[in-house]
Amino acid sequence: MRNIKLIIEYDGTDYHGWQSQQNAVAVQDVVRKAIKKLTGEDVTLTGSSRTDTGVHAYGQVANFMTDSRIPADRFCYAINTNLPEDIAIKSSVEVDESFHARFSTKGKKYRYLIYNHPVPPALLCHRAWHEPRIVDFEAMKQAAPDFLGEHDFSAFKATGSDVKTNERTITYVDLKKEDELITFEIAGNGFLYNMVRIIVGTLVDVGLGKIPADSISKIIESRDRRQAGMTAPAHGLYLVEVYY
Amino acid sequence: MRNIKLIIEYDGTDYHGWQSQQNAVAVQDVVRKAIKKLTGEDVTLTGSSRTDTGVHAYGQVANFMTDSRIPADRFCYAINTNLPEDIAIKSSVEVDESFHARFSTKGKKYRYLIYNHPVPPALLCHRAWHEPRIVDFEAMKQAAPDFLGEHDFSAFKATGSDVKTNERTITYVDLKKEDELITFEIAGNGFLYNMVRIIVGTLVDVGLGKIPADSISKIIESRDRRQAGMTAPAHGLYLVEVYY
Repeated sequence: MRNIKLIIEYDGTDYHGWQSQQNAVAVQDVVRKAIKKLTGEDVTLTGSSRTDTGVHAYGQVANFMTDSRIPADRFCYAINTNLPEDIAIKSSVEVDESFHARFSTKGKKYRYLIYNHPVPPALLCHRAWHEPRIVDFEAMKQAAPDFLGEHDFSAFKATGSDVKTNERTITYVDLKKEDELITFEIAGNGFLYNMVRIIVGTLVDVGLGKIPADSISKIIESRDRRQAGMTAPAHGLYLVEVYY
Repeated sequence: MRNIKLIIEYDGTDYHGWQSQQNAVAVQDVVRKAIKKLTGEDVTLTGSSRTDTGVHAYGQVANFMTDSRIPADRFCYAINTNLPEDIAIKSSVEVDESFHARFSTKGKKYRYLIYNHPVPPALLCHRAWHEPRIVDFEAMKQAAPDFLGEHDFSAFKATGSDVKTNERTITYVDLKKEDELITFEIAGNGFLYNMVRIIVGTLVDVGLGKIPADSISKIIESRDRRQAGMTAPAHGLYLVEVYY
């Protein structure tokens, strides 16, 4: 059997996230069905991340084992012919049998869009978080680098998630503003449940003057979810890249 | 009565263009209904441009007369509360009674997005034209400035449109490429029916080697629609700004 790695882009608006679940359509189901239509196989399609309902992806990664003889780089085009317009396989390659889209992950990069203008953005209505109150962007810029490094991010984790450790290393943060659009990017070796959305919500709370710009380290040290800010909505979040 | 000027952003995907028509929902209808809900009046809402089905707008302009005493700058927020997410009033101001969104127009600016990559763009599926064949961007860049100036643009007009003159002046063109995304912008004192889409289709035909890069002036001079290239699809087009 061959192990095929896919890079997948999707608009998450109309899906209940990546992961299959009962009584709702997930991106994983749609891609699996498209593969079945192509090869006849009921494959196990392993994704790198369970993106939430409404979250988008430029670079979700998934892999599956197949007996099909389709050349690896052609899977991409062949699967796309069976997919709706809001999901696209960007590339397909054959990888070593040990490759596992979830367990082999070394890191991830996310992007978050905030539309900061009194009036909502019709063209970004499902693509960016609309914050109508004008934020203090310089305060947010001052706070953002304090997320860098290795920390216990318990304060930035939604309750109900069960992982061995809450230690994560953030290797990159970037925050920029172009007219009304604020773009936040963050990369690290892993993220706790809702961690990016809580970090963004906290940065916006800094921008709104609810949380002091110099208090991020103290919030991290507290390991107390109540010290951090709000959880930003799902529809502004994009999984940009997964590192292996 | 007061004359109110609106700037309107919309995602054209789910609408049959700007202009009201039977048996289809147009953006104009939706905005009129939102105004009626607010003021109780059946206003005449005049738009600057009849955008086609699927065409988007950052800056459509419309005006209407009202007896309402709502402060002019509050109309924007008040109408938005009655609009779906994919239409937003960006601003509202009171203007002189002689102002007419269509007849007072001095010029317009359009943007067109082309996604040039073998694989389709899930996140831009209704927002950019997908051209899977890689184009010669330098050839397109060479051709684009030849649209500047005052010309008879009969060769770049869809049949069936009836206007007094086909003379138009193009004051600005810009073509840039960032990764897979090609952005074309054009401004002028007016545009014939489908003119921007035929100009874009012709530029892509130049990029595909079907039309020589140095032949734009000759095509314009021919005044023959058959000499120009294909008509680019509606969903890559954005009305960016209307000048008065």
